[in-house]
Parts: sequence; structure tokens; C-alpha cells
Amino acid sequence: MHLEQIIEEATRMPNRTVAVAASEDSEVIHAVKMAIDKGIASFQLFGDEDRTTALLNEHGLQQSDQLKVIPCQAPDESAAKAVQAVSSGNADVVMKGMVSTSVILKAVLNKEFGLRTGKVLSHVAAFEIDGFDRLIFVTDAAMNIAPDLKQKADIIQNAVDVARKLGVETPKVAPITAVEVVNPSMEATLDAAALSQMNSRGQIKDCIVDGPLALDNAVSLEAASHKGISGEVAGQADILLVPNIETGNALYKSLIYFARAKVGAVISGAKAPIVLTSRADTAESKLNSIALAVRSV
Amino acid sequence: MHLEQIIEEATRMPNRTVAVAASEDSEVIHAVKMAIDKGIASFQLFGDEDRTTALLNEHGLQQSDQLKVIPCQAPDESAAKAVQAVSSGNADVVMKGMVSTSVILKAVLNKEFGLRTGKVLSHVAAFEIDGFDRLIFVTDAAMNIAPDLKQKADIIQNAVDVARKLGVETPKVAPITAVEVVNPSMEATLDAAALSQMNSRGQIKDCIVDGPLALDNAVSLEAASHKGISGEVAGQADILLVPNIETGNALYKSLIYFARAKVGAVISGAKAPIVLTSRADTAESKLNSIALAVRSV
Repeated sequence: MHLEQIIEEATRMPNRTVAVAASEDSEVIHAVKMAIDKGIASFQLFGDEDRTTALLNEHGLQQSDQLKVIPCQAPDESAAKAVQAVSSGNADVVMKGMVSTSVILKAVLNKEFGLRTGKVLSHVAAFEIDGFDRLIFVTDAAMNIAPDLKQKADIIQNAVDVARKLGVETPKVAPITAVEVVNPSMEATLDAAALSQMNSRGQIKDCIVDGPLALDNAVSLEAASHKGISGEVAGQADILLVPNIETGNALYKSLIYFARAKVGAVISGAKAPIVLTSRADTAESKLNSIALAVRSV
Repeated sequence: MHLEQIIEEATRMPNRTVAVAASEDSEVIHAVKMAIDKGIASFQLFGDEDRTTALLNEHGLQQSDQLKVIPCQAPDESAAKAVQAVSSGNADVVMKGMVSTSVILKAVLNKEFGLRTGKVLSHVAAFEIDGFDRLIFVTDAAMNIAPDLKQKADIIQNAVDVARKLGVETPKVAPITAVEVVNPSMEATLDAAALSQMNSRGQIKDCIVDGPLALDNAVSLEAASHKGISGEVAGQADILLVPNIETGNALYKSLIYFARAKVGAVISGAKAPIVLTSRADTAESKLNSIALAVRSV
């Protein structure tokens, strides 16, 4: 499966609406234009009216049923209203504009109008990597610093939810560690073993979890067989659960900067997908993220 | 600099001798043959005499001044004698054969005849990556599980020693974290800041340390400038210090399996370099590791 395919399938689905918080941002409007041109979503732009409409003009866009501007006075108002648009059913996805992540998350976690589920929120990235015919999901490379066992279980479930929405019926999940054996001096291997058993006991659903696995054993059948590791996940993992944010972040960036992989990412675990693109993301990866979010609804 | 160049320069240097511990291993003899054919080292093979000479025959090799078999009864005897060959000055590099890493390290750390320096031993990997004209060193992806600040300082110094032997006069060192700012909730960022200051104060020598840096800010000038990060290391790092073994191992394997990078690796921190290749390494990477070790003497 390629990211291009995710985009293509999004165009054929019932049209979803993305609520953008603080839309007065040139790069966000650029991504909005690409998504509109591809026909993958409609947008409600919550933000500074003058600056947003000026940016729409610059990008050759005009308001329509698919593209509405809702004037807001300040970024936190934009965030609150964008989240409310989703919780009230008028929109399907929240997307971050010119507002800090903490302000968006505060609105998402608001007890009255937010999108809480009680589960941890986590970052799910889908990579298209040369030489791999499936998407490889990496989680969590960006939100949870040092998740404990219960949080890791939620993080897996969040990624499984996204992968299943994209058609991976029973995702294979590898808790990634530095070695493929349980080593009492390496806590990540103990968590990996526990997560595998939680999966066997039905505490983590709709997927197959088998770890500990080192990255090579998780993604290369040859490396797995070299080590004599069998099982349904070894060499065939769809989802790589990293043990901490340092591992996830280095793996994520190694894929982008060294392996030149393509990526889209979404925050999962709330009642609706959240798109938190960053300034450093390419326009292409922002579009991928919007498509991924639309498909994850 | 390419790994091919490391090999080439090794052929032009004074010939070094590698003491192989437990040489009765087909893959090790294959690597020995490649190194002999390239003329990058001489070998003393400590191991089972019958099996070693049979393997030499299989590979079309015969004993000579450059290739001697020293009969040993058991792997631990082979390890002890190989280490003694180096500590007594008869050889320059220790290389692991058909013996466990723990047995080799026990011999290396032996108080009477070992190669202790008081410093931590650490794994230094040199990667040749498409699109990068310099080698990128990753440390420590394999030995130290969760190094503390003092150990990280040693690990940097060990990698700096290797890089300098290869001609990188003042290596640029990036302590890799998930973010480029000091964040009290992320211990790796505190260590990164402390290591940078230890370098300013002359506690870590012959290099420039500047962190915390995320991987993208460390290796991409564009990503660094996008974040407004200046300094001599940002975007130009030679050495990536990872905060824990999970990060290092995932980064190492991502480079091999996703970015298809070439690698050689050596254990640094003892009185002599140690080559610990593993069964999963390709013949090419074993040769790279021997060349790296020979050049690190």
C-alpha cells in the first residue's frame, strides 16, 4: 500500500470535513488548497478573518460549501471552536494551524466540549519506504515521552485503529527493543513480553502483538530467520511500537533524512483524528497527514 | 569519506596484526580471507587447530607469516590467548570468532593480562549513507544499555578517538534527543546540555559537542536552519551520541534495513580496538569492521 493510494481512496469516500484551528497560516492554507484540489476533504477555517481570506486569495481559493471561514478573535478561541465543531458533529477532523500544540490539546481534552475518550493520545506515523510493499507504522515518535505499560497498550490500540481504518485488517505489532530476548536489565523487553501476553489474553485487540523484537527481526524475514525467530509478526510487522520518544524520534527522522521515506501522521486516541503538522513538514507530508486523518475518521 | 577509502588507506599503512579468538568459524575465516586478499592485516588465529586449518583449506588459504594458527583447547583459552597476544604487543586488534561476547569481554577486562583503561567500553559504528559525503558515526548502539552522564562522556571520547584516527581532526558530536531544547521532563536533554558544557570546560576533549539536537537538526543544515539552530554541530554532526541502547539499535538497523547504508563497527575504550562482528553482518560489513579496527589502533 502506498500513501498515494490513501489519498486516492480518500477522494472516493463520503466527503469529510476538517476543522482548522487558527487558519491564518500560509503553509496550512497551502495544504488546504492541495487537499481541496485533490477533493479529499472540505474545510472549516477557524481563525483571523482578514488574514485567512487574504491567504485564500493568494492561493486562488474562494469560500464555498467546501471551504468556510469562521471568524475568531484569538488562537485559543479558534482551537476551542474547531474542537467544538467536531464534538458537535459538524466536522470530522481537527487540524492545527497557527496555534501551539498545547493550546489545541487543551481544547481536545476539555471536559465539556472536548474529544476525550479516557485513552492516551498518541502519534501514529505511516511510512512508505523503498523496498517495502506495505506501509510501516511507527508509534509513538512525538507525544508520549516514556510511556508505561498501560500507556503502551493504549498507544498500540490507537495505532491499530488507524491501520485497520486503512484496510490492514489484523495489524502485526512489534514492540521494538534492542534485542529479541527478554532481558531483565532492559525494561523495554519486559514491557514487550507483557504486551504480547496482554494481546493473547484479549487485553489488546484486533491485532497480533509479538515482542520483544529488534528492528531488523521485525521488518526483515531474512534477519528474523537468521536469528531463528518465527511467529506471525517477525519480519512482517506493520506497526513498530517504540519504547520511548528518543527511539521513536530518531527512527522517524532516520526514515525521512536517511531512507528518504514518505510519511503522513495523525494523533489518535481522541474521539476524532487530529492533524498536527509542523513547519518542517513538506507540503506532500501535510497532504498525506490530512488524507490519513480523513481515512481514520 | 567512504568506507572503501578506509580499506584502501589501511592497505597503505604499516601492517597490523589481528588476534582472532576462537577462529573455528567459517564466516570469520571468510572475512579473514577478504582482509588478507585486500592486504589490510595479518592474522593470528587462536582456536581449534583441526577445524581452523580445515576452514583455511576450504577458503584456499595457507599458513604464512601473515596467517598463523595457534592451537587452543577451548573458546575461553582462545579468548585469553588472543587478548594476551595484544597486551604483550604481538598483535594490535582483538577479533571475536566462535565465542560469546561475554567471554571475550571477560578476557579483555582481565586485571592481569587484559586491556583495561578504566574507561567504559563502547560500540562505535561508522556509516556510509547515500547523500552524505562524510561518515556518520553512531554510538553506542550495542553495548551500554542506559549510560549515565559519566559513561556518556566516555562513550563520546571513545568515538572521538576512532573518528580522529580516521582523519576527522575535530569531530562534531551531537547528543541526540527527541527535541532540540532542554526539557526537564526528558533526561536525555539534560545530559546533552551537560555534555556540551563538559566539552566547553575541557572535560571532553578533541571535539565539539553541542546538544540537545534532534536527529534532523544534527544531520540536515536545512532542518537546523528551519528551527533557527546555529552552532558548529547543527546540521554537520559527525558523531551521533544516542541516549540509550533502544535508540541506538533502532537507528543502526534503520540505516541498514531502510536506508541501505554501509557500515563498519568497532569496540573502543580498551587499550586496543576489538572487532565483534555478528552472524547477521554481511561479509562486506565484517571487512569494513576489520579495516576500521586496523585504522583505530
